[in-house]
Amino acid sequence: MTVKQLPLPELVAHCVRLGIPGIGLWREPVRAYGTEDAAALVRDAGLAVTTLCRGGFFTTDGWEEDNRAAIDEAAALGTDTLVLVSGGLPEGSRDLPGARARIADAIGALAPYAEERGVRLAIEPLHPMFASDRCAVSTLDQALEIAERFPAERVGVTVDTYHLWWDDRAPAAVARAGAAGRIHSFQLADWTTPLPAGVLHGRGQLGTGAIDLPGWAALVERAGYTGPVEVELFNDGLWARDGAEVLEETLEAFLAV
Amino acid sequence: MTVKQLPLPELVAHCVRLGIPGIGLWREPVRAYGTEDAAALVRDAGLAVTTLCRGGFFTTDGWEEDNRAAIDEAAALGTDTLVLVSGGLPEGSRDLPGARARIADAIGALAPYAEERGVRLAIEPLHPMFASDRCAVSTLDQALEIAERFPAERVGVTVDTYHLWWDDRAPAAVARAGAAGRIHSFQLADWTTPLPAGVLHGRGQLGTGAIDLPGWAALVERAGYTGPVEVELFNDGLWARDGAEVLEETLEAFLAV
Repeated sequence: MTVKQLPLPELVAHCVRLGIPGIGLWREPVRAYGTEDAAALVRDAGLAVTTLCRGGFFTTDGWEEDNRAAIDEAAALGTDTLVLVSGGLPEGSRDLPGARARIADAIGALAPYAEERGVRLAIEPLHPMFASDRCAVSTLDQALEIAERFPAERVGVTVDTYHLWWDDRAPAAVARAGAAGRIHSFQLADWTTPLPAGVLHGRGQLGTGAIDLPGWAALVERAGYTGPVEVELFNDGLWARDGAEVLEETLEAFLAV
Repeated sequence: MTVKQLPLPELVAHCVRLGIPGIGLWREPVRAYGTEDAAALVRDAGLAVTTLCRGGFFTTDGWEEDNRAAIDEAAALGTDTLVLVSGGLPEGSRDLPGARARIADAIGALAPYAEERGVRLAIEPLHPMFASDRCAVSTLDQALEIAERFPAERVGVTVDTYHLWWDDRAPAAVARAGAAGRIHSFQLADWTTPLPAGVLHGRGQLGTGAIDLPGWAALVERAGYTGPVEVELFNDGLWARDGAEVLEETLEAFLAV
């Protein structure tokens, strides 16, 4: 998503050229390219698919069919992790605890299907500014409270610095998640202001914002995480530029932080 | 601030006409009108000044002089409560815990001066989307952790629905704050999306958004709060309209929720 302007074959070629060993894919470009073809493309290049983004939106009608499809796509791509963005308040509702309960129920209903296909579910808490319209799960503690109802190898969490950096309880939650083997995915983005309208596309290039990213990496490492580190930037400015250039710049920024 | 397009004398006249018994004032219009003149205007109309907004920004140079002036202005206006927006990260810093420690120290340095002048300090947690640039105090728990270092009648908190509605720990914190007599101010605004660029001016008219406002009012009431209820909307759309009309509409919305 960081370089969504790059068609999948170009993305794969640039990753190979730059020595980037794996990529987190999003469903839309994968489906547009063809899931089996995308799987073959990435596999033949020797790249890992680190995660598939995203399932979730459990408070919207049709969630079950869509999430089963997402699990199937993850399995086809050969990744073991499906990231879940859980969804906000149902249309017309003001019941945030009710939305969270509905999300937990949906994950419970989905977990056996994911297990059969060898796919882990990674609940991603999103920044509280998305609580009403994208994700009622706002903190790592909330994500863990749901994940802990299931075996760690089946349901865990995504730790994304952009969403969690402000929370003074997050470091303890990271330690708890790591000790239980529940950190299934770790993503980096920086916090820059002013936020753009709609706030979705304001994620900053690594090192340009307010987040102590080396500190977060150390925190996750101390918690025992040894998996891939993804960079996930939604940024209109980056998307408007040459994709290969942005990818190179992002790799440099990643290594620098 | 909800109707900042209204000059102070018109605001006071409309409040009297509509039976609104008190107003929370902001420093800029008060200073522009003259603090003593503003105090006389409001007092002669029989209105209470519920709070003065705002002191704070403790992570910026010059905070001490500015906050002493704010305390003097609050005392002159006859309000017992100065709302504090604590400030974000210092320029170039990524140390959020350090910013919070600096804020606590500043409040400690300021408290005796406020006490001498009969002014309570009300620490307002702001939504986490403001953590870097406006307020490193993001949750009611964090605000209470600072306030609890001081006597309750001197340092408390502001409960603002807009900033706290998403937090599943906030209800317990409201109960704890109320039991200790630390809720010094209660403000209403609704959460509406999409957020505008910069996110500061996106507060929704009561009843138009995602927040269960009657539920929040009941929560604060159960916690023992009997003080004024303020409506504080920052909204470019409302500011562009006729102020008296917006004031009437806001009163209706307030009574309806």
